[in-house]
This record gives sequence, C-alpha cells and structure tokens, in this order.
Amino acid sequence: MKPEKLVAPEAAAQVIAEALPYIQEFAGLTFVIKYGGSAMDHGAEFRTVVANLLLLQSVGIRVVLVHGGGPEISRLTARLGLPQSTVQGLRVTDEDTMEAVEMALSGKSNKAIVSGFSQQGGKAVGFSGRDGRMLVGEVIDPALGRVGQVTEANMELVEIALDNGFIPVIASVGEDEQGQPLNFNADSAASSVAIALRASKFIILTDTNGVRADKSDPNSTISELTLAALYQMLESGAADQGMVPKLLAAADAIEAGVDRVHFLNGKQPNALLIELFTEAGIGTMLSGDSS
Amino acid sequence: MKPEKLVAPEAAAQVIAEALPYIQEFAGLTFVIKYGGSAMDHGAEFRTVVANLLLLQSVGIRVVLVHGGGPEISRLTARLGLPQSTVQGLRVTDEDTMEAVEMALSGKSNKAIVSGFSQQGGKAVGFSGRDGRMLVGEVIDPALGRVGQVTEANMELVEIALDNGFIPVIASVGEDEQGQPLNFNADSAASSVAIALRASKFIILTDTNGVRADKSDPNSTISELTLAALYQMLESGAADQGMVPKLLAAADAIEAGVDRVHFLNGKQPNALLIELFTEAGIGTMLSGDSS
Amino acid sequence: MKPEKLVAPEAAAQVIAEALPYIQEFAGLTFVIKYGGSAMDHGAEFRTVVANLLLLQSVGIRVVLVHGGGPEISRLTARLGLPQSTVQGLRVTDEDTMEAVEMALSGKSNKAIVSGFSQQGGKAVGFSGRDGRMLVGEVIDPALGRVGQVTEANMELVEIALDNGFIPVIASVGEDEQGQPLNFNADSAASSVAIALRASKFIILTDTNGVRADKSDPNSTISELTLAALYQMLESGAADQGMVPKLLAAADAIEAGVDRVHFLNGKQPNALLIELFTEAGIGTMLSGDSS
Amino acid sequence: MKPEKLVAPEAAAQVIAEALPYIQEFAGLTFVIKYGGSAMDHGAEFRTVVANLLLLQSVGIRVVLVHGGGPEISRLTARLGLPQSTVQGLRVTDEDTMEAVEMALSGKSNKAIVSGFSQQGGKAVGFSGRDGRMLVGEVIDPALGRVGQVTEANMELVEIALDNGFIPVIASVGEDEQGQPLNFNADSAASSVAIALRASKFIILTDTNGVRADKSDPNSTISELTLAALYQMLESGAADQGMVPKLLAAADAIEAGVDRVHFLNGKQPNALLIELFTEAGIGTMLSGDSS
Amino acid sequence: MKPEKLVAPEAAAQVIAEALPYIQEFAGLTFVIKYGGSAMDHGAEFRTVVANLLLLQSVGIRVVLVHGGGPEISRLTARLGLPQSTVQGLRVTDEDTMEAVEMALSGKSNKAIVSGFSQQGGKAVGFSGRDGRMLVGEVIDPALGRVGQVTEANMELVEIALDNGFIPVIASVGEDEQGQPLNFNADSAASSVAIALRASKFIILTDTNGVRADKSDPNSTISELTLAALYQMLESGAADQGMVPKLLAAADAIEAGVDRVHFLNGKQPNALLIELFTEAGIGTMLSGDSS
Amino acid sequence: MKPEKLVAPEAAAQVIAEALPYIQEFAGLTFVIKYGGSAMDHGAEFRTVVANLLLLQSVGIRVVLVHGGGPEISRLTARLGLPQSTVQGLRVTDEDTMEAVEMALSGKSNKAIVSGFSQQGGKAVGFSGRDGRMLVGEVIDPALGRVGQVTEANMELVEIALDNGFIPVIASVGEDEQGQPLNFNADSAASSVAIALRASKFIILTDTNGVRADKSDPNSTISELTLAALYQMLESGAADQGMVPKLLAAADAIEAGVDRVHFLNGKQPNALLIELFTEAGIGTMLSGDSS
Repeated sequence: MKPEKLVAPEAAAQVIAEALPYIQEFAGLTFVIKYGGSAMDHGAEFRTVVANLLLLQSVGIRVVLVHGGGPEISRLTARLGLPQSTVQGLRVTDEDTMEAVEMALSGKSNKAIVSGFSQQGGKAVGFSGRDGRMLVGEVIDPALGRVGQVTEANMELVEIALDNGFIPVIASVGEDEQGQPLNFNADSAASSVAIALRASKFIILTDTNGVRADKSDPNSTISELTLAALYQMLESGAADQGMVPKLLAAADAIEAGVDRVHFLNGKQPNALLIELFTEAGIGTMLSGDSS
Repeated sequence: MKPEKLVAPEAAAQVIAEALPYIQEFAGLTFVIKYGGSAMDHGAEFRTVVANLLLLQSVGIRVVLVHGGGPEISRLTARLGLPQSTVQGLRVTDEDTMEAVEMALSGKSNKAIVSGFSQQGGKAVGFSGRDGRMLVGEVIDPALGRVGQVTEANMELVEIALDNGFIPVIASVGEDEQGQPLNFNADSAASSVAIALRASKFIILTDTNGVRADKSDPNSTISELTLAALYQMLESGAADQGMVPKLLAAADAIEAGVDRVHFLNGKQPNALLIELFTEAGIGTMLSGDSS
Repeated sequence: MKPEKLVAPEAAAQVIAEALPYIQEFAGLTFVIKYGGSAMDHGAEFRTVVANLLLLQSVGIRVVLVHGGGPEISRLTARLGLPQSTVQGLRVTDEDTMEAVEMALSGKSNKAIVSGFSQQGGKAVGFSGRDGRMLVGEVIDPALGRVGQVTEANMELVEIALDNGFIPVIASVGEDEQGQPLNFNADSAASSVAIALRASKFIILTDTNGVRADKSDPNSTISELTLAALYQMLESGAADQGMVPKLLAAADAIEAGVDRVHFLNGKQPNALLIELFTEAGIGTMLSGDSS
Repeated sequence: MKPEKLVAPEAAAQVIAEALPYIQEFAGLTFVIKYGGSAMDHGAEFRTVVANLLLLQSVGIRVVLVHGGGPEISRLTARLGLPQSTVQGLRVTDEDTMEAVEMALSGKSNKAIVSGFSQQGGKAVGFSGRDGRMLVGEVIDPALGRVGQVTEANMELVEIALDNGFIPVIASVGEDEQGQPLNFNADSAASSVAIALRASKFIILTDTNGVRADKSDPNSTISELTLAALYQMLESGAADQGMVPKLLAAADAIEAGVDRVHFLNGKQPNALLIELFTEAGIGTMLSGDSS
Repeated sequence: MKPEKLVAPEAAAQVIAEALPYIQEFAGLTFVIKYGGSAMDHGAEFRTVVANLLLLQSVGIRVVLVHGGGPEISRLTARLGLPQSTVQGLRVTDEDTMEAVEMALSGKSNKAIVSGFSQQGGKAVGFSGRDGRMLVGEVIDPALGRVGQVTEANMELVEIALDNGFIPVIASVGEDEQGQPLNFNADSAASSVAIALRASKFIILTDTNGVRADKSDPNSTISELTLAALYQMLESGAADQGMVPKLLAAADAIEAGVDRVHFLNGKQPNALLIELFTEAGIGTMLSGDSS
Repeated sequence: MKPEKLVAPEAAAQVIAEALPYIQEFAGLTFVIKYGGSAMDHGAEFRTVVANLLLLQSVGIRVVLVHGGGPEISRLTARLGLPQSTVQGLRVTDEDTMEAVEMALSGKSNKAIVSGFSQQGGKAVGFSGRDGRMLVGEVIDPALGRVGQVTEANMELVEIALDNGFIPVIASVGEDEQGQPLNFNADSAASSVAIALRASKFIILTDTNGVRADKSDPNSTISELTLAALYQMLESGAADQGMVPKLLAAADAIEAGVDRVHFLNGKQPNALLIELFTEAGIGTMLSGDSS
C-alpha cells in the first residue's frame, strides 16, 4: 500500500518538472561546499547534510566538501592546557597550537565526516591540504604564528577522487614551501579550492539564514546579492562581523570566475535541495552581475 | 523577484529528495511509450506529453515512442472514399486501405510528432517499421488483408538514434519478407519494440485512468496488478473490450522480461512524472510477480 | 563449369586494373544521388539503380539518396480531388496539397525505396527533411503556398546513418522554423544535402543522357562541362527548360565546393558504374574549372 | 577527350559489377603469394606482377610475398667456384653454399624485389626468415647439409608490417634453434607462412599455366582441383616432377585450413586479376572439398 | 670534471648489469612497506628511506607505505594525562585513547610522512583506514577496548592513487561496521594491505638486521627463511618476543599469496636498494617454499 | 648460498642509487648505436655488446643499431676476384663491388647480428636502407661509383619496429631515386638515422677509447668535447685520420639536434653501461655547448 502524501500528486509533478532541468543543468558540474565549525556539531543535522550531498552526487554533481572545526580545536587545546587568543577573528597559532589544530582537524573531524558518508552508503575520502601539496601557503603575519593564506592549490588528488566517484573531504590545514604545517581559515581555503576547481557553485553552510541586510534583524535576509552590493555592505559596515571573512571568501570566488556563491543555513533541513532545485530559494545567492 | 509557490519549500524538498533516487535509478534505462489514437488529437495535451518525455530524456532515460493513428487513417480513407470495416477490433486492410494507412501514419502523424519535439527544442527522428527492416511481420488472417503481426524486430536504427541523443518515433507500419507493407496494431508493435530493446518500462498512454476492476466504474482503477490477476481478468471477462489488446500486449512484454508496464491517462497533465517520480502512482502498474 | 564470357579475360583484367584505382580513390567519400520523379516508375530500372548503389556502398562509398516523386503526388491529389497548377515549373502548394505531398513522399515513395534496398539485402533508412530538423526552410513566395527553399541543412542523422552502414533515403519535404511543412524542389534539396555533407560527387539521375548542347538534338550530349559553359548555356537560352532547375542546383553544388556533378540517364543500365569506374564516361560531368 | 575503348562501356560495367563483390569479399583477407625462381627474371613481367599486387593491396587485401631465387644462387656459387649438386630436386647446401644462398637471397633478390615495389610507389619491407625468428627450422637430412624444414613460424613482424600498410617480402632462408642459417624450399616456406597467417588464399606463381592433367600436354590444364584429386595425381605419377614440391606445399596449406590455393602463370599479364576478380579463372584452383 | 669514485667503473658496470634485470622484473609490481614506530624518529634515516622509496617508484614499482606510530601516541596520551597499559604487546585502547591514537596517527604522523615525500619532490597522499572504508574491522577482545583486527580491506583508493603516480601512505587506523574507530596493529594492517593488493613483496622495516636465529645473538641473522622454518621458530620459542607479531603478519601474507616478505633494518642506509637490487641481500627474506 | 661480492653492498647500493635516476631519465628515449667494421669480429665482445643493448632495452630505451661491415666486404670481393681501391678512405664501388657490398652487408652481417640478439632471447629485425625506402641517397662523385650520401631518411619502419619491442638492425646500404643500390659510409648513415629519429644519444662503438687529444698518445683520451673544440681539432689536423669521418658524422648529429654523441670502445666490456649509468664516464662525450 502506498503512503498518503502531504503534497498532491499534481503539485508534486509540478515540483519535479521544475527540478528536472536543474538536474540536467548541474550534471557534471562541480560544487564546493564549505561546512564546519558549529554546523557540524548536531548529529541529525549533519546526517541530513550528508544525505543531501549524496543525493546531489547521485545525479552527477561533483561534490567537494571543505571543513574547518573550531569547536574541536578549542576542546583539544583546552585539554592540553594551551592558552588561546585571537586577533581579528584569527586564532593565534603557535607551534603547539598548530600541532593541536592538525590533530583535531586532519585526525579527528576529517575522518568523522568521511565515516558519516560511509555510514549512509557513500564513498568519501579525507584529505589534508598537505596531501599531494594540495594547499600550499605562506604565513600571513609572524605575530599570528602558523596562520597562513593559500598561495597554490593543486587539485590533482581532488579531481582523481571525483573522477572515481568519491566525495573529497578536505581539512583546512596545509603547509608552506618548507613543508611546515599551516592553519588556514576554512572559508578562505574553501574559496581557493572552488577557484582552483573552476567550480560552478561555492556553497557556504553556516548557522544563519544567509546574509542579512540589517545584521540585527533576522528577518532581513537578502535573497540575491550582487558583488557590487556586497562590497558596499563591507564598506558601510552593515555586514555582521562574523560574516566578514565569509563574504570576502565569497567575493574572491566570484571575482575568480565561480558562477554563484550561496549562503545557506546548514541547520535547516534540506536547505541544499530547496536552494538548488526549486525556484523558492532560501538563503542568499551571490552573483557577479545584477541578475 | 521569485514567484510565490503553491508548495511550501520544505514539502518541495521532500518531493525532490524522494524523486532523486528514481532519477539515478532510471538513468541509462530504456522506456518504450505507446502513444496514439485519440490521445494525440488535443494540442495542449500532446505538448505536455512531449514536454514530459523531453524531461525524462534530460535525466538520461532512453525514450522511445511508438504510435498508431486511427483517427488520422479514418479521415484519409473517408476522403478517398474507401469503405472501412473492422473484425474483432482490427481494421480490415485491403491494398488501398494499406496505402492510406501508410500515408497517414508514416507520412503525416509520424512527422507531425517529430516536429512537435523539434518545436520544444528536442531531437527526434521518425521511423516506419519498414526502415532498416525494423518491424518485419506476416499476415494474421487473409480475411483481414494486410493486418500483420510482428515476427522480427531489428532495433539497430533505434539503438543508434538513442546513442546519439535522438528520441525515436516509430509508426506501427512494417512489411513482410517480400517487402510488402503491413498494418500492425500499435499496442502490439510497441510491445515488440519494448521486448526487443529489453526495455525496463513499457508505458501505455490511453485516455482512461489505468485499468479498471469494474469496467463500468471509473473509480475502480487498480493501482498495482500482477500478471496472474491480469490473466484472471481476461478469462473472467472483467476487462473492458477496448482494453483487451492493450492488456495482451502488456502481458507479452512482462512475459518476455520487461520489468514493468504502466497504463496511464495521456490526457492527465504530467501523468508520466507523477507515476515515475513519486510514490503516489496514478494509473495501473503491471509487474510479473506479486509485489 | 565456368560460364562463357562475352569479354575476353585479358580485356576484363584491363577493365579491372583500370577500375581498381577509382575504387581506392572513392573509398570513404560521400556521393549524393538525386533520383526521382519519372525515373522511379519502372521496376527493373529502379532495381538496377538500387543494385548499383549497393555495389558502390560495398566498396566504401558513402551513398545518400534524395528523392522527389511528382507522379506519386499527382496521383494522390487527383484521387483527393485537389485541383493542381504550376507556376514556372513549381507546384502551387496549398495546405491540402502540402498534406498530400507529405503523405505521398514521406509515407509512400520514401518507404517503397527503402524497402527496395532491403529486398536486395541492403540496409537503408528513410528520412523526411523534418526528421531531426534535417531540412529547414522558408516559403519562397506566398503565391506558391508551401513551396520552400532550404535555409538550414542539419546532417547529423545522415552522418550517423552512414557511419553505421545505412543508406539514407531522404524525401524532399521539410519544415519552416514554426514546424509547418514545406515542399522543396528535389534537385535543389539534393544540392543542399550534397553541400552540407561536403560530398565529393552529386549525381543527378534523370531520364535523358546528360545535358544537350542543342536541346532538340538527342545526339548533342556534352561529355564534360565547366561552370562557365553552364552559365553561358543558361544565359543564352540553349538549355532545355526542364533542365534549368537541375542545372541551377548543380551549379550551386559546384560553387559550394562539391567536386563534380554528374548528369546520368537513370534508365540506362549500369550508367552509374560506367560513369564512375571506366574512362568511357556517359552522360555529362560538370566541374568547376576547365579540365 | 576520352580515349576509345576496346571493351564496350556496357560490357565493362558488367565486368565491374561482377568484380565488386569479390573486392568487398576480399577486403581485409590475407593472400600469400609465392613468387620466384625463373619467374622473377624478366623485367616487364616482374613489373606487372608488382603492379597487380599493389592493386590488390589498394582494395584492402593483405598481400605477403615469399620468394626463393634459384638462378641468382646458381650465378653466385658459379662465380665463387662452389661445385653444386642436387638430391631429389633439393640443392645440397654445405656451409659455403649456405653463405652464398643467404647472400644471394637475403642480400640481393630480396632487396631488388622491395625496390621494385618502391619504384611503383608502393611500401614494401624485406625480411629473412631469421628476422625476429620468423622461420625457425631443423636440418632435414645431414647429407643435404643446411637444407631445412620449417618447424616454427612466428608472424609478429609480418602482421605488424601488414597493419602498417607494408607488403612483406620474405626470403626463404631461416635458422635453427642454435641460430645457424638454413636453406628452405621456397614453396614449402611460403606454405608455412600462409598457414601461420591463417591466409585465405595461397597463390603460387610459376611459369606454366597451372596444373596439367597430362604432364606432356600443355592444353590439359585443370581448372579446379580437389585435395582428393591432387593426392591421386601424386600417387599415380601423373604429376610433373618439377610440380611435385609445389603440389605438396599446396596440399599442406589446404589441410591446415587455407581456403584456396591457386597455381597461376606469373608470365601471363594480369593473371592475378583475371583469376581473382572474374569468373573466367585461368590456371588451377585447389580447394579442400569437391566444389 | 667528474668526481673520483670508490668503486671502479668495471665493478660498477657489473653491479648495474646485475641490477637491471631486477628493475625490469619489478616494473609494475606492487611493494607494500611497513614503516614505523621507532624507525621513524630519526630525521636522516627517514629521509634516506623516503629517497629510496622514490627511487623504487621512479623505475615503475608501485610503492605503498603503511605506518603505525607508537612513540607519537605515547607522547600525546602522556600530555593528555591518559594512563596507558598493554596486554600481550597490545595497547589497551579506551575511547579517550582511541581518540588520541587517531589524532596522533592520522593527524600528525601521516601528514608528516606525506610532507617528507613532498620535500623530496615526490607525490604522496595520506590515508586513514577510514577513508573509503579502506580498512574495516572488528574488536578483538572487549577487554582491549578499540583494538581491532582487519576483516575487510578495500583498496580502490590505493589503486587509484598508484595509477596516478602517488605513493599512498596509510595510517593503521580503521573503523568497524558502525563507523566507530579501531586501532590496528600496524604490522597486521600492512599485511592485510599487501594481501588485498596482491603485492609481490611485503617489506617490514624495523630497527634490527632482520630475523635472528638466536634472539640474543645480533650476528645470527637468518638470510633466507621458509614458512616452515618460521612456524618452527614460533613454536620453539626461539623468536624474539617483540618480533612475534611481525612474524605472524609476515606468515599471513605468504599464506595468502604474497611472493616474498623482507625484514630490513630501516636505520641501515640504503637497505632497501641493497636487498632489492643486489645479490648481497641483507636482512631476512621469507618465502613460501624452500628456495 | 649467496656468492661473495667484490663490491661491498653499501658501495653497490651507492652505484644503484646513482644509476636509477638515469634509468628513469632514459626510459622512452631513443639511442642510435653505430657498431661495425672490426668491432664486430670478436665473438665474446659482440655478445657483450648485444647483452648490454638488451639491458638498455629492458629498461625502456629505444635501441637502434646501424652497422657497416668492411672486413666482410673485403673478404667477399677477394673471393670474387674483384680488385678494390679506396679514395680518401672511401671504397671505390663499381657495379660488381656494389653487388658484393649489398650481399655481404644485407645478406650476411645484418642477419648474423639479428641472430645474435635472438640467441640471447631478444627480438631484433634486420633492415637494409632499401626497405621501405628507409635511406635514399645520391652518388657523391661518379669517380667513386655507387658511393652515396643520404638525402632522405624515412623512419616509419624503424618506429614501428621499436613500438613493437624489436631492436632494428640497419645495414648501411640504400638506394637512389631510381631504385639503384648505394653504398653509404656507416658512420654517416647512422648519423642520418639518429637525426631522423630525433635520438637523444648517438653512440659510436669503435676499437679505441674515445677521441684522443694527441692522436699518437693512447692516454690522451678526451672525456668531454664541445662542438667548437671538435671543429678546432678537425681544422688543426690534430684528429686521427681514421677518426675524421666519425667526427664529422658526430658533428652533423649534434648540429641537427641530437643531445649527445658518445665515442666508446666496443671491445671494452660493459663500456655502454659504464658510460650511460655511472658518473665515471669512459670514452668521449660530445655535446653542443660547453658543459
């Protein structure tokens, strides 16, 4: 016996007829998803994101995940008794902290995410930016220690993984030319990956419903944003402080040829499917030209 | 500005999440659709069917259309002053009528359907069963004239067309070993095509909502039907007389290895999408085993 | 026991030694043959032409046939009681006549020719110019109704058929941008096909022995003709009126890069073999430069 | 202006129509031709044979030539003052004679033949049976010195040459397992090559018109011969003594699966073309079953 | 100017002539190298091993590295204040220790090794046994906590990496069917990898010169060992206690079809080259049959 | 038991570590080796050269051998009673001598060398410059008779042989445009082959230890030579007279883009391995720039 449906068949057919052209359009394209920090902490939400990404992969989208893991790092440095401080939102990263960052991200979070895909029947592989010199960078400011910015993104391993049906999961750690580890901001690392892969979409999963016009008003989410408007927000100070690095990473991606950047709430069930396959659109979509 | 939607985004996402696995499952499979007779007469409905078939093709389904064209034939024979008669639902087909059948189907209906696909941006190619000896047959009964049954189905042209992204549109006309034309029942010809292509689905578009348990009760549509139940219907006389050749063609297909036969109402908007991509299911689905 | 031969073995060897280099030279080239109208009416001659074309195909020539079918159309319009008139040799084609043209050509002649190849063991496939938007055109003159000229020739289906060993047989019917049918002059349509396929040869089978220097003298057949001489004939009025559209179609082909156009008598047995594989040459050969 | 022809165009077309199916049938097949001894001495005849073989190659036949060179050997041994003797038609081959055989065949005849192909625009490559251990053998009888029989035929080099459009020209010299040179009977070596290549035809070019029923009657040439009849001729002593090794080599080839062996007069102009592409047939054709 | 050499050119040529056949023989074969624990701690030795492995790769050997990292784990657990104990040489691994094991191995050692290859110009990629479900296992004994044994080895990622010129570096961590992490003995994990890859050689780099006949006598290294002799050593108690798990892992590999297992001293410079490319052989070679 | 070694394992490993990068570097490159004249006369030395060349081939080097054969020619002309003279080191070659040259080189030496490879398990194929018009030339000076210089080098056969794993062995005989044989200087022919193949190395095996600074001092071998220094030697008359044609052939190769020319003593055991795989270097290496 077939289950009763909340959506009438005719309406469902309408939804599907609307979705199919997107599915055809997206087949073979590359989407880079930044996921991380607090978004990763809640089991059920994480499982829904994984399920959504596997659905995207099932219809031919080349899905790449880049993650950070602030809470995990903080937990480990606390246990190790390492005092932490931040400068302009960046974690000051001395050698000991760098070791802890790498162990927490590459050793723990990365493999936990990979395992999450396996548990739903998917094929995923975890990388650090040090694998195959995927993400090479340089120190930003000696005062920040091992905090780095990406100067070279080598996507050979990622392409190989995608060509063979694996979802690459990349921890935002890399190294400098001398092989010493570097701690990258995950939004920025994800942007570098999206650019290097000539991705069609760069999707930033956060814990808010996209970008707000008024940082204090949760109902002011902007549906579509142009690059010009984004720069204006940054200049005018309208942007939420925590949002700034994400907005900059997004702008970099658009400037370098990524078609669209989407800001979505990773905690909203099926946010990815709604944004990608319906006209509804939730969250904020950034594009280069006014459209 | 984005349009208001009748379906809430969350519900739409649910519909899509449900549909995507079917899309993945169907990619690369072959579906043979019988379409014809009266179903073809109404412009808007025809355009919706074409649109649906192009959506199916867009997600990787190998779509093949087989058509008859009773009304078109009747119109031409009337204009030519050829008297017509039927025996057990089959049109008695003398030489003159055969010529009219071929001209109406291969010359007119076939090309009109192909053109309908072109008008929506699709790629279609019309075939007669005489092209490349696609459908070779023999006379059923001399009393019926050139009415034939298929004895040999050569799908090389159909496979080539599919491999190159064309939707093959096949008129239910063929020829005998001596190259003389034959008039096939379109349901039966479509069944032969589905079998020869090892199709996964054979979909019969009619002008009723599937198969009825009680031929006089429009609300008695059977949702799922097994081969055993179908044979019982035929034996008990429960089946609608006009439905009998369709049921027999469907049974042949299932016996020969086609996975499923679906009876759908070609006049119902998006019937194909509802049946294929939702759990709802409208119309009747026939399978080999009780499921 | 071996049969007695009319040609002495040594002479036969000479013929073969002369033919083999042509066979090697022609392998892989495309020849477009216009065949039609009255040439098609006589069974034995039609069978010889089909046999010759199959021999050409057997040694690697890519053979494409384009046909009209004036007599067939006239017969049908007469039966349907449609009055016919011509303006400057073109059939005035109202909607009803257009329907008859399409049914006679795409429905009847086209499939009869295809079947003729099948009966001799060949593989052929019939197309209308409406299949895959093969021949798209526009109305020449509203006064002529649906008479069209080709504006776009899409050879994908033809190439696919050739690559798979089929002889494409194309009816000189097409459609306009809105998908409404058009009636093309068959010589002109064949020329468009030859040009679009970058054919090496365009061969026009008629019922006379090539082009005459003096239209009233059957013994004045011109063996070789240059484009310049052809234009002079047209200007001076020396050309036979019925020959004019053929000469124009031939000139178009040469102008657009087809190597040679041959005018042959389709009723002369083996005319194709004599013209192509011996030094004798019968009929008229048109080339771009004086050779 | 076109030249006058000895053969009427219609008759020529008939010859061509008859030849084309053979051309199609032979394309891609391998023909091994034994050519040699006295047949090679006359310039014009040699050039005709080369021309014929190039024509065969031009229509897709894989042509392999195997040659001996008795007269050339005799000339060299005479100049070197080496006394020669034969036992049962085989040249007694001491070490000095072996050296002369190899120099005359591999060094002189082989390269002269290759050059003959080059002079007519063909691509040929000369091999000795020692190249790539193509023909490995063993001594037949110590009393005959280095006279050998083939025990192993490695066709890799021959296949590579054919695949790349070269005509392989093989001298009937080989070596034993220890790498010491051996002198093979050329008919027998050619038969080994035909067998190892799974050739369709093995053609022996001699200086007589095929096999005679009565060795003293030049008009008794047998047109078709079965294996049974051949064995009977050998037993009854009807066969010409000089013909015996050729007949044995031919029988070996048929027994091992070669379709046909043809005995032709290499001095008759175009004998190869007449035999292969006309019904006439000159010379003698040997097949396995009575046909 | 060329440098003076310690080895005379003739002797060097002899060495090379001896080595080249091994190089040819090994090209395309897979060698799994277990490296780890204390062997990894000394910079210069580690760099020599990396250099040797890159040389092996340069001549076509498919090199796979599997590593543990006891000292690294002990350091981290100490810093985290986690009390450690061992049972029969296996680290009792509660949840907290498991987390530390994974962070130390997958997060730190694994990436440091990968970086070591990069620093010498090589291409390497780090995996955990959790990537792509590479090493799935089950708990050995609840009393030991998360200590596991491999039950399923999926080498797809390893094969892909090798096919693309990367050296896979695998940490001896995996997971169970529920996705919970497991701590594998590195020798045993490496053996599972060698078996699953159908490796030709499994090379265990330790800090002693192979297997000793008398565990207390450093000069009693056995040059060649059969499986039978190995089992006898295990039964008789002659084997060094620390060597037992390595011997068992080696025996498993041989039993499952790996050709040879080599025990080498990872601290001896160029031990890999000497063992693989010279007749000298240092360390111990284990094979299945007495050779 | 393993044999005692003259070279200590550590030193051997050093030799191998030094050789492996060369092996990787040389894989897939083409080396043309000139071998001939007196160097070929001594069995053991010849076998060592063959063994060395097979080792080179085993690690992926594309080895081509070009040979002359002065002593063999002199022996045959003497036996045939043909008086011989030389002008400036070139053998005056009348028709009779040309025949003897071709028989001695293409018939005897060439096949003996090929057989030498076979005896060591290698795959080799002998060519004359007449095969496939490999080496076409013209007469240098009518007074010298058939002495030629190469004007056209067609390497198709050589490339095919190499691609299929055969070592091509080329006799320095060719032909002119009319197909008449020519006698080439073997050094010069080898240089033409090296140039046409875009070889990386052209190696001249002689019976002296490279090029001497002082022609009368056997200890004055020059280790590395630039093109400039070579031209100076030729101008100053410092070069040994017998060395001049070799030096000119070498200079031609370097001028035309061959990377290096090496002069080695073919009688010195393993000279090829020492020169190619060790830093030692024996003999003389010529390069285009001062290095």
